[in-house]
This record gives sequence, C-alpha cells and structure tokens, in this order.
Amino acid sequence: MDAGSTYLYRQIADNIERKIESKDFRAGEKLPSVRNICRELGVSMSTVLEAYYYLEGRGYITSRPKSGYFVRQLPAKRLARPEISTPGVYGEDADVTNMLVQKIYRSFHSDENILFSVGVPGKEFLPVARLDKEMVRALRSLPGSGTLYESVQGNVRLRRQIALQSINWNGNLTADDIIITTGCMEALSLSLMTVVKAGDCIATESPVYFGLLQLARGLGLNVIELPTDAQTGVCVRSLMKLADEGKIQACCLISNFNNPLGSSIPAVNKREITEYLSQKNIPVIEDDLYADLFFGLNRPLSCKSFDKNSNVIWCGSVSKTLAPGYRVGWVAPGKYLERMMHHKLVSSVSSATLQQEAVATFLESGRYENHLRKLRGILHTNCMKLTDSVSCCFPEGTRISAPGGGFMLWVELPDCFNTTELYDILMEHKISIAPGRMFTLQNQYENCMRLSFGMEWNETINQAVKVIGRILTQYEKTMTRCQ
Amino acid sequence: MDAGSTYLYRQIADNIERKIESKDFRAGEKLPSVRNICRELGVSMSTVLEAYYYLEGRGYITSRPKSGYFVRQLPAKRLARPEISTPGVYGEDADVTNMLVQKIYRSFHSDENILFSVGVPGKEFLPVARLDKEMVRALRSLPGSGTLYESVQGNVRLRRQIALQSINWNGNLTADDIIITTGCMEALSLSLMTVVKAGDCIATESPVYFGLLQLARGLGLNVIELPTDAQTGVCVRSLMKLADEGKIQACCLISNFNNPLGSSIPAVNKREITEYLSQKNIPVIEDDLYADLFFGLNRPLSCKSFDKNSNVIWCGSVSKTLAPGYRVGWVAPGKYLERMMHHKLVSSVSSATLQQEAVATFLESGRYENHLRKLRGILHTNCMKLTDSVSCCFPEGTRISAPGGGFMLWVELPDCFNTTELYDILMEHKISIAPGRMFTLQNQYENCMRLSFGMEWNETINQAVKVIGRILTQYEKTMTRCQ
Repeated sequence: MDAGSTYLYRQIADNIERKIESKDFRAGEKLPSVRNICRELGVSMSTVLEAYYYLEGRGYITSRPKSGYFVRQLPAKRLARPEISTPGVYGEDADVTNMLVQKIYRSFHSDENILFSVGVPGKEFLPVARLDKEMVRALRSLPGSGTLYESVQGNVRLRRQIALQSINWNGNLTADDIIITTGCMEALSLSLMTVVKAGDCIATESPVYFGLLQLARGLGLNVIELPTDAQTGVCVRSLMKLADEGKIQACCLISNFNNPLGSSIPAVNKREITEYLSQKNIPVIEDDLYADLFFGLNRPLSCKSFDKNSNVIWCGSVSKTLAPGYRVGWVAPGKYLERMMHHKLVSSVSSATLQQEAVATFLESGRYENHLRKLRGILHTNCMKLTDSVSCCFPEGTRISAPGGGFMLWVELPDCFNTTELYDILMEHKISIAPGRMFTLQNQYENCMRLSFGMEWNETINQAVKVIGRILTQYEKTMTRCQ
Repeated sequence: MDAGSTYLYRQIADNIERKIESKDFRAGEKLPSVRNICRELGVSMSTVLEAYYYLEGRGYITSRPKSGYFVRQLPAKRLARPEISTPGVYGEDADVTNMLVQKIYRSFHSDENILFSVGVPGKEFLPVARLDKEMVRALRSLPGSGTLYESVQGNVRLRRQIALQSINWNGNLTADDIIITTGCMEALSLSLMTVVKAGDCIATESPVYFGLLQLARGLGLNVIELPTDAQTGVCVRSLMKLADEGKIQACCLISNFNNPLGSSIPAVNKREITEYLSQKNIPVIEDDLYADLFFGLNRPLSCKSFDKNSNVIWCGSVSKTLAPGYRVGWVAPGKYLERMMHHKLVSSVSSATLQQEAVATFLESGRYENHLRKLRGILHTNCMKLTDSVSCCFPEGTRISAPGGGFMLWVELPDCFNTTELYDILMEHKISIAPGRMFTLQNQYENCMRLSFGMEWNETINQAVKVIGRILTQYEKTMTRCQ
C-alpha cells in the first residue's frame, strides 16, 4: 500500500482521481468548490486545498483564476509511478558513477545543447535586475567594498533572515544557530566532516543526488543506499533497522522534493525518523534546498521541525531559487554547531562577503517570497507540460514520478533500456539527459533518467522531448532483449 | 652553520653586516654603490642588489631614492634570530591547538583590539576603489549578472592571467593547468583530499600555519612536523629521511615567507626537494600565497619552478594581496588535475562567479603589479619598524625572525615565558597576539609568538608594542623559574 494514502488530503485526492479516470468527472468540467467539499466531508479548507494542489501537481486538474478548479484534458495515456527502489543488491562501482558525472558536466559548457540534465532553474526565472541592484548597494555599504573577510559564522543580517523564515516550518531558529556556507555543497561537506570520519558508514535514499555520494566516498565513508518510494521517500523501517543494528554513524536525507526522485517524506515519517535517530544518537543531515519550491499550499515541514534534541543538521541555500553563481548556502547544525564552526574556519576561513550582504538585503526587502511565488507557478506548469509530453511519446511501460515540488522528473523505462548508452545517442541530437546510473554507487537504475523542467518552456523543448521519444522507440526495436 | 650563508649574496651581505656591527660602517654613512661592488668582487649586479635587499630586510641599511644605500641608526640592541626548531619530541594535543585557534579568532570581531594576530594586510592597503569598479563592470558584463554557475574549473580569463604571471618564476603554466578555488584554503583542502586519505601521514614545516594542521587532522591525517630554520625553511635532510623510510604519503610546504616563521626555502633546496620527492612519487603540496610579497629584488622561485614531473601541487590566492573577502584562490595540481577537478565538482560545484571575473579584469589591466610594488614597500618598512620596536623593548634573550617578505614576525622569548597565558593578560589591554602554541600540534613554542605587521603603522601600534614589552618585563619578574 502507498504510505501516502493514509493522509486525509490524499484520500480526498485519490477519490477525485478515480472519478476522473472513470470519466465520472469529464475533461473541462468544473470541480466542486473547495467550500462545498469542506461542508460535505466535514474537513478543513486547507485539507481540501492540499488535495487540489496535489491533483494539480499530478496533472489531473487545473485552476483558473477566480473560477475554481477544472478537470484537464488527460493525455492519451497516463504513466504509472515508479515502484519503490530496492538498492544494495548489486556490486558497488564508484568509478563508473565518477566518470559518468564528469561526462555529463562537460555537456553543460555548450549553449547549443538542450539541457534536461541541469539541476538549476533557468536564468530567465532569476530576479537578476534586482539582485544586481542589491549587489551594487552591498559594494557601497560594506567596509572595504566587500574585500574584507566576513566573520567565520557569516553575515548576521543574512542569518537573521534565514532564522525568521524558519518560523514558516516550525524550525524556530535564531541567527546564532546558523552558519553561512559556500553553497549547500559546503554545508553538506562540513556536516559530514563534523559528525563522521573515514571508515564510518552513512545511510541515504536511493537514487540520490550524485554529489552527496561522491562527497561521501571522497571522505572515505561507506554509503548504504536505502529503499525509497517516489512519493514518500526513504523506507523508514529499513532506516530504523540499520540504526538498530548499529551499522550507520549518520543519515543523510533530501527530505523534500528529493533530487532526483521528487519524493517528499511525509511529516509523520519525518517525526518518526527524527525522534528515533536522536534516541540512537545518530545525527540526521537534512539537505533541504528544494523545500521552498512546493507546488502545494504550504512549504512542507522538515525533519528539523521535529528536532527537540538538536540532532538534525539542516542544510539549505539560494542556489536553486535565486542565484546559483552566488554560492550562498547555510547550515543549522544543532548541537554540532561549535565543532562545525571549527571545521568552517579551518577549511574555508569564511564565505565570500559581498553575496551574503546582497542576499541579506534581498530577503529583508520581502521580495524573496514574491519571487518564490512566481517561480513555483512556473515550475508547476512546466512539470505538468513535461509530464504530458513524456506521457505522450515515451514507450509503453514507462513510469514517471509525480513530484509535489522542485524541478525534476524521474523516468523509469522498461528494463531493456540503457540510459548511459542512450546519453551518447541523444547528445548527437544535442540533447543532454541525466542517466539513472549517476544517482547510485551500485550497478542499477540503468533504465532510468532524470529530466529537469527548470528551463523556460518553448516549442524547441517540446520537440526535444519528442526526439527523445522517437529515439527510445527506435532503440527498443533494435534491442532483442525487449522482444 | 647557517645553510643560508652558502649563497654568494649572503656572503656579501654577512660581510657588510659584520662591518656595520663592528662600526667599520657607521650609521648614516653611504655604502659603496652597487656598480662598485660588482666590479670589485666580480659578481653580477643582481647578486649585489639581492645582498642589499637582504640587509634592508634585516634592518641594517636603508635606501634613499636616487642616492643609494645608507647604514641605518641601529637600535640599542639587536636581537638574535631564532634557532632551528626541533619539533616532534613532545606529546601531540590537537585539542589544545583547536581551542586556542578558536579563542584567538574571537578577538577579531572587535574593532577596538589591536590585532597583531591577524594574518591579512590592512584594508588601507587594498585597492578598494579600483576593485569596486571592476566588480560593477563584472555585474554588467556577466550573463545573468553573476547569478549563474561559473564552470567547475573556473573563469578562463582569470586562469589565463595566473598562467601568464607564472612566467615570472619559471612556472610556465597554461590556463588549462589551473583550477580556481574558494580561497587558498579550498586549494589546500582539495589537494589533501586528492592525494591522501584518512590514516595517511603528511610532513610539514614546524611551526606552521595552524589552518593546515587543523585541516589535516580534520581529514584524519597524521602530521609529522619537521625541524625548520627561520631563514631557510624545512630541514631537507629530515624530509628526505622520512621519504626514504616510506613514512609519508605527501609533503606540504609554505615555501616562500612561511607563515609564521618567515622562512624561505633557498632555490637549490627547492630543486632538491622537488626532484627527490618526485622520484619517490610523494606529492608536494606547495602553499605559495606569500611569494608576491617579497622585499628583495625578484619574486623567489617556487618548488613548482623545478617540477619536471608534474608532481608539485601549487596553491595560491589573492587573499593576502588584494581582497581576502573575495575568496579567490587557485591551484595548479600538475598530474593530479583530473582527480582534483572531480573533488572540486563534488565538494563545491564551482566558486563564486563575480569575484573571479572582477579579479580577472583587474589582473588584465596590469594594475596588480603596480599595487604589489606599493604594498611590498609598505610591508618592508613596517617590518623594519616592528623589528626595531621589538628590539628596543622586549626582554633580554628575545630572538626574532628576519623574513625576506610577507607580513609576519616570529618572536622567541626566553623559556620561562608562556605566551598562551600572556595572551589573556594582553587582551585586557586590548592587544591580540598569536601565541606560538597555535602553530603546532605538539606541546611546544609556548615561549613564542607571531606578530603581524600588515596593519597601517601609527603611534598607537608603536605604543602597543611598548605595552607588550612592559608586560613581558613584569611577567618575567614574577616568574621564579626565570631567576
């Protein structure tokens, strides 16, 4: 059973979804108003809205301003969701992952390529003009125009803003709880250096962001990849079992809109994980840099929201929402703060001064929330468009994730496909995808790919998806294994 | 015997030094012209100039524009130089070093403190207005105003400039040989992560920059601290012996104007070290971020200058010369380039975009050399002033380094002094020094301190040195061990 359906909003959503699938609700038809459903089912407004947002994310319904929600024209076929992953039964080969990652990164350097492989939002969506102004202001206001060292802990105004925003998700941080880092990668790197040492073992979701895997291996850590559901994230039972057996010294989770799977750990699971691992004194490193890009009603909670014992190390950045090139990230290390400050001091002294000041002023101005609202709308629409395109032209048996936020789709092709091979073929058409094999140290996910929908959507993109579909179909025909 | 005196310029300098000490040359007297000495001794102009620069650095002579060199008024007493260090015979205690470093860093946050402990040049000496302009220009010219990721390897124009400058010291690098990093600390961190793993052992000079020690310990490395001469740097024989015995997997040297000792490894030793360790396949990590701050005629050579087998990993930055807060550093990893690129990608993606562009334009404009020339003059003068002040008012038996560049003096007090204790006493007078114990993992150098002369010199600074002198004298009287 899908763990997600135990939530009230999911029950409501699943019910409506069934009615749409069975044509009880027809394409173009107006859905009952939120108010009506509230009354009828005796539930809160926010639960119904959550259900509608969820269905919107799944591509079943669409909202029209001031008119309400309508059933969408469903694509000719709807793809199933990926099954829960079962990693760890294959041999590990970190070098394959390495080489693949390097190869994919090389494709980024040409403007000619259509980059479904890049994990950042398109530059058209960034508030460049405004940030530019904040940067000039920072040059004027900082002593020495930003040539001097910022403190090790980082710009206090920026830390204050991050702390303020944490109220939205019950983080309740103060400026003193936070260290500014050079992007989220430094936050993760410092976290690992602070709580584990070479030879130790960490648990992660699977598939998972390759940077995390590579970083861990680079620090001489062993990694156990856990079974993960494309909707509800890591399998809590597997994680607890590892903890019980004393096999892991830390756990590293992308808890919201996981890269690449799009999964979000339900609040109840977050609480359970946080409390259980705290009892076992196993630090939770929470990579939470996508949470602000939700398609639903509210920003989802984080493990840190339930962190009574300061055992969760919460990491974030503006790289996925505001300015990747600024390299502004942060970490709230809980009880590991002092040790991490030391690692920060000796591994990088402090982060670049100017960008911290510019981002601080941008956040203080209140423009960030405004910007995020727009960006979320664009990404949500893009998500539906890419889902529709893939549904239309990818081969029979393809499965696809239905993320509730972020900008990535996880596509599972039938077993006969090899996306590492397909990568080279697609690059001949100047289309770059991220093969599934990048997101694991094991020999698996060869039939999967991650597609980003962070770019500005246009007909070229749409055609590129069709090209992928056509090449997949040709590829399938040549594969005897598939017949 | 002092290894340095085997060089021709040192023989000339030592000869003149003896004549000044014996009053054969009297204060205020004009020294023979460079041309005359050349003729008389049959040596090259640059050898004589090197000797004069060396004597100027030692405070014996001073140059007057268009008039030549003159004997300075010597201070009432001249201090001896520190003896060669003999580390490694005491117990290791990394925690003591840790805590001390953290304590000293806290003193940086108050503008009220006189910071002899800070290892950066004063902000008055940075070309702030010009960098400000370059930054605004970078905002205008970069796509997305610097909000987008720079490539993993870094800004190609900046790499080209660094490569161009390497011709000055026979580095002969190309833009492709270089990776841009977030300050020199990231360069060191990537270097260690690339060539050694937890449990491995590295050799360093002793005393040595605490950041290097802490970083190494943080990565689970063992550190062997080598005997080091305050003029000529690491003891080559000790280093070779370790290499022969297979006890080290890498060697990490601050080859020019070492922090904190001020030592510079003579070219002939650099060549010997480079060739020998290359034969043994032991990578040399060369932290070379002070080399541009020479007081002499030319920039000294680096180990990288002799690196025929691409075994030297050469690290630098603009943090000590241009803009600490920009966090712009670099590394030329030789044959380890590809592996290091991978570590760079997974540990930080790329460095901040804007500062790379601004520094690139600044270097292209040719203003860097001009700026350095001014900065070197100021630092050389400050070095002499601080040496004179310390010589005048520190207790009998004090020894002091005579660096040929950089901005730090190493002061060795008689054995009864404990500079870790003295730190707290001096902080009551709002004077911050760097106690010797910071620069080692062993229980040693408690009678030493590092004093920076990077700040703008004024009467307050001069008075502060006198306060230190007075407190040292009082402290000495209360110490029964000294009696």
